[in-house]
Order: sequence, then structure tokens, then C-alpha cells
Amino acid sequence: MDNDIDRKRHCYCVIMCGGVGSRFWPFSRSGRPKQFLDFFGTGRSLLQLTYDRMLPIADPERIILVTNSAYYDIIREQLPDVPVANILLEPARRNTAPCVCWAAHHIHALDPEATIVTLPSDHLILREAEFHDVISRGIDFVEAGDRLLTIGLKPTSPHTGYGYIQRGERIPDVDGEIMKVKSFTEKPDLEMAKVFLETGEFFWNSGMFLWRADAILRAFERYAPETACIFDAGAGSYGTPGEMDFIDAAFPNASSISIDYAIMEKADNVYVETADLGWSDLGTWNALYDCSPKNQDRNVTQNCKVLAHNCEGTLFASGPDKIVVACGLNGYIVADSGNALLIYPLSEEQKVRQVVNEIKARFGEEFV
Amino acid sequence: MDNDIDRKRHCYCVIMCGGVGSRFWPFSRSGRPKQFLDFFGTGRSLLQLTYDRMLPIADPERIILVTNSAYYDIIREQLPDVPVANILLEPARRNTAPCVCWAAHHIHALDPEATIVTLPSDHLILREAEFHDVISRGIDFVEAGDRLLTIGLKPTSPHTGYGYIQRGERIPDVDGEIMKVKSFTEKPDLEMAKVFLETGEFFWNSGMFLWRADAILRAFERYAPETACIFDAGAGSYGTPGEMDFIDAAFPNASSISIDYAIMEKADNVYVETADLGWSDLGTWNALYDCSPKNQDRNVTQNCKVLAHNCEGTLFASGPDKIVVACGLNGYIVADSGNALLIYPLSEEQKVRQVVNEIKARFGEEFV
Repeated sequence: MDNDIDRKRHCYCVIMCGGVGSRFWPFSRSGRPKQFLDFFGTGRSLLQLTYDRMLPIADPERIILVTNSAYYDIIREQLPDVPVANILLEPARRNTAPCVCWAAHHIHALDPEATIVTLPSDHLILREAEFHDVISRGIDFVEAGDRLLTIGLKPTSPHTGYGYIQRGERIPDVDGEIMKVKSFTEKPDLEMAKVFLETGEFFWNSGMFLWRADAILRAFERYAPETACIFDAGAGSYGTPGEMDFIDAAFPNASSISIDYAIMEKADNVYVETADLGWSDLGTWNALYDCSPKNQDRNVTQNCKVLAHNCEGTLFASGPDKIVVACGLNGYIVADSGNALLIYPLSEEQKVRQVVNEIKARFGEEFV
Repeated sequence: MDNDIDRKRHCYCVIMCGGVGSRFWPFSRSGRPKQFLDFFGTGRSLLQLTYDRMLPIADPERIILVTNSAYYDIIREQLPDVPVANILLEPARRNTAPCVCWAAHHIHALDPEATIVTLPSDHLILREAEFHDVISRGIDFVEAGDRLLTIGLKPTSPHTGYGYIQRGERIPDVDGEIMKVKSFTEKPDLEMAKVFLETGEFFWNSGMFLWRADAILRAFERYAPETACIFDAGAGSYGTPGEMDFIDAAFPNASSISIDYAIMEKADNVYVETADLGWSDLGTWNALYDCSPKNQDRNVTQNCKVLAHNCEGTLFASGPDKIVVACGLNGYIVADSGNALLIYPLSEEQKVRQVVNEIKARFGEEFV
């Protein structure tokens, strides 16, 4: 119990919530990307669900949101309990490595003993208790030393859209769920993904990371010295009123690079904790379809009323006060939101991104 | 010119606008049926277009609207220039014969020399100048005597949803467009409709009628004595403050019967004026599709923005501020309005009526 309280005292959480994304258009919009949407009609957005999920582990005062300045208002609205000082507004979009590096400096200045759980804001996790166990175990592991830990998810299909982590040797005196990482592989082709699945050694890269603040800063010094150099220059300003002035000037100079590429694939102290969290990155309409409950015609109803005749394998998404009547659709997305309606084959959803660009060009910003 | 002014003095128009209709759901709703909708995004509803079309012929003071009391507010909103006293509110739904009989009594009380043009409120007429010629010629014809005139439209296809009027002998000294009626046929089968079309003798029954007030009242006495009896009892009250009290008590006692069946199919003084008005009764989504301009993929865009990939023969209807993106739809209705969205094959649109009933039962009144 004392140990728990102590852990909470030093445990910080960084939720990365600055992403844009047009793949869920018309639900996600440029001013309201996926993480801010109440995807499942539960009354809580994906960001709010991520926050709620961390509350048993980290106090609101120790939950840091890194985002784009465009989303300040919506974050204040959705997470009023998070102190304003905990909302770090990136002045430019630079992928995850600069975000992680800034947040680590910020937190390290507040608490040199801090442990940081870094999370995406827009994923689905169905097994919450398991998540808490995994994170608690991971915190214990990284607190004990100079270790970078990533969460690897048990794959359920040979998905070609995810990165894969191959686990390596067991660690003496450590729970079997945490092992050394042997390799990272970005989006394999289908043949390779099938092999990955068969071996049982490969896990999906969840984008969830745990480390001590000092450990990740040390890793930046060693493996991403240019990024480290830019943020080291702010020493003394982090956690002070001068922090944002420094960041506004320095942050745009950082290269756009992912934390996986900058650190995880290079460092020799990288570990993976494997888990089965009922996870989806909800990266596509197909992912949403796959993880949603289906009726006997394999249709999915997302937060609306539906009367479907002769429809199969179709995903209907609208608002709770809307009725959708459809006949004869097979394998479709029907997504109605605000001033836009999308009726598109699920098998061609990769085209939605270019559709959104076409709409922007032909009909204007207000539709995207 | 003098003749024109005189005609306008005695010419009344009755616009029947009490109909309900679920066939255009979700655009038409129980509280807002088809005649009140701005179908073509022109800024004017079908009722307003009907009214506008009659203005060169009848003063607003002589345009009478017969409707259901539920639609009083919307009529006041859409046609503010029509005096309140000209809105006749039926206390019950009784088809067209009681409506016509009441309106004739009402107008006859105001002007015993009145000529009445009776019109549906929810049809499309593209050739407005021709309409004015046809109505003017018809007024001249019925003013001259005890004649019941119906407008017969040149058929463009062997439509099985319309009534057909067979024209008979020419009338000495009368323009060739007006002839005696030989027969009425309700909705023929396709074989018969094809024969009708080939002979050139058959015309679609438009539901537009012209007669003197005294002539139609005389016809009621002869051919529909029960209806006549009910309304004759109100003599003395028509055009007075006591009219509505009488109507509220008497009208519900009238049988529900159409003017065609009650009078036109029986009377021996029935004439047809044939015309080509670019007419559609807009009775179905298919009728709307047929009469609308199409793009190279035979798609119809009704009052909204559309991005269609691999769609053919599909009708898109929504609001002017909405974008619809669709892919792979062939021969569909996509109709989005308020709290409902319909995606249905045009070839199965006759099922929409039962869909609406199902929605009402399962989801409630607010969706129909």
C-alpha cells in the first residue's frame, strides 16, 4: 500500500493527443480529430476514456497532455480536471520523438525521480483491469533501472498495418511477460505477417511506452543527439514560466521523427511487456468494424438507430437521434455526421483520405 | 384586355393542399408533407410554386386553400399574402369530392358568377407559359356554359400509376385541344397502358379541373346527391362567420370519395383539354428521378453537394449545406433529411411506405 502511494507520487502519464486524421471523415474533422470523438456513444471521447483509464494509476495533476495548440479549447472542455499547466501545446507538428523529449524534460524538471507512462489518445482498450495490471507491472520494472519498456500486444490476425516487435530473451528474476526486444519490424507484407503470427514471438507495437524520465533523456543523448541538443538548450526553463517561450522558438527546429525510429529501434535497453488488452488502434473504419459487436447479418450499428433490409457486413455510424434506413448494402461504411454523409465500400476505405482532399478542393474547408 | 380584367374578377382558384404522404420520407414527414417542401432547392415549395403559377390568372384574394387544420401554420408561413379567410380547414380527411363541394359552395356564396380552377398543390409543371394558355383557354370554355373540364396530359410513357382519360368527339366552334371525354380508366396494366399510348387518344388525368361554381354544384346535385345534401344544408352560412361551425359539424359526415369517381366518371358534360405541360405528379422517387436533369452517369443531385464514384442512376437528395460522398451505388435513392437517412434501391421504393410504418412502430412518431 505504501509502495502504491509512493508509485503514484512519482508516476506521470503523458497522453499524446495532437494527431490529426482524415480517415474517419466525416466523423473526424480537421478541427475535431478522432481522439476527441465519442466513438461508441458512451458519452466519453477516446481521449476521455484514455484519461479515465489512467486515473487509478496517476493523479490528474500528473497527467500531461501534449497536443497541438488548435486543440486547447476542446481539451479544456473534455478534461477540465487536468491543470492548464499540464497541457503542453506544440507549436508545430513533429511526430512523436520531439513530443516525448519535451514531455520528459518538463516532467523531469518537476520530479527528477519521475516515471512516465506515455500513451496514444485514440486507441481502444477493452480489458481495463488487464491494462492496469500491465501498467503497474511495467512501472515496477522501469523504476528499477535504466530501461525503456514498450507494450506489445498479442496479435489476433496477420495485420499488415501495424509495426511488430519480436521478443527475445527472458530476464532473470523478472516476470515472463517482460522480455528483451529482439527486433522491430514496420508494417510487414502479408506473407511475413503470417509467419510472424505463427511463430508466437511477434507482437503488435501499441505505441505505449514506460520509462523513467532520466532514462529516456539519457537515451535521447545517446541515440538521437540532434533532438536531445535542441531540448537540452531549454534546461532551466522547463517547469517555469519561461518554458513556452523556449519551446515556441526551439520546437519547430526539431526534426519530424517517430520515437520508435529515433530511440526504440536503436537502443540496447529496450524491453517489451506482452499483453492481451482487447486493443485496437481504431486506425480505420475496418478496424472499427472488426472490433465492434455485430448482428446476425454482420452489420455494426455505431451510436444510431438502423433499419437494414438485405444489408450485410455494413457499418452504420451516425448520431443517437438519427435513424438510418438502408437496403441492399453489402460491406459498406455508412457514416453520417454533421454536414457530411459517406457511403463507401469498406474494402475501398483507403480512398477516403483522397476523397477528403477532393472535397476540400472542390467544396471548401467547412466540409473537412 | 377588358375581357382579361373581367375574367380575373370572376376567376377563383382552389388549391387542394391537405394531403399527407409518406412516399417521400424522410423528406416528407407527417407534419410536413410533400406540398410544403422545397423539392428543387429553388427557395419555393411545391405549394408556393403552384400559387405563383396562378398569380397571373387569379388575385391572391381569390385563391382558396383547402387543407387540413394541422397545416394552418405552415400555410400562413408559406403564403402570407393569402387572406386568412381563404384558408378552408377541413375537420376530417375525406378525399377530394367533399373538398371540391365545400369550396364551390364557399366561392359561390362570394360570387355566384365565379369560375373555379381546382389544382393539386404538389405537382411539377415545367412549361409555365403553356400552363397559362391552357388555363385561360379552359376558363373561356367553362365560363360559356354548364361544362366540367379536366386537363389531360399528353402521356410520355405507358405509366401504370396514373388514371387515363380517353378523348372523344370534337366540339363545333371550339379549339381542337378541348374535346368531349369518352372514358376514364384508373391505373391500367402495362399492356393496356401501351395500347393507350399508341392510339394517341388517351391522356393522363392531371387532377386539374375547371368549372363554374354553379355548374359543379349542379353536378353534385345530379351525380353525388348524398354529398350535395350534406353541403346544401349549410346554405346561408357559406362566406359568413357561421361557416366553420357548420363545416365542423357537417363535413365529417361526408363520405370519403374522389371527385373523379363522384362526378367526372358519371357526368355527361365532361370535357378534356389536352396539353403538354412538362408535368409530373412527383408521386414517387422514381417520378422525381425521371423528371430531373441527370449527369453523364445518370445521377440526379437534388439540392445538395455530391461526390459520386462509380455510382449510376442514383438520386441524391439532401440539404444545400450537406455533402454526400458515395461509391458503387447503382439505381439508389439516397435521401437525407433531418433525423433520418434513407438509402434504398429506386426499384424497391414502393416498400418505403411500409418502412415508415415500421419506423413509427419501432422508433416512434418523431421519425416519421
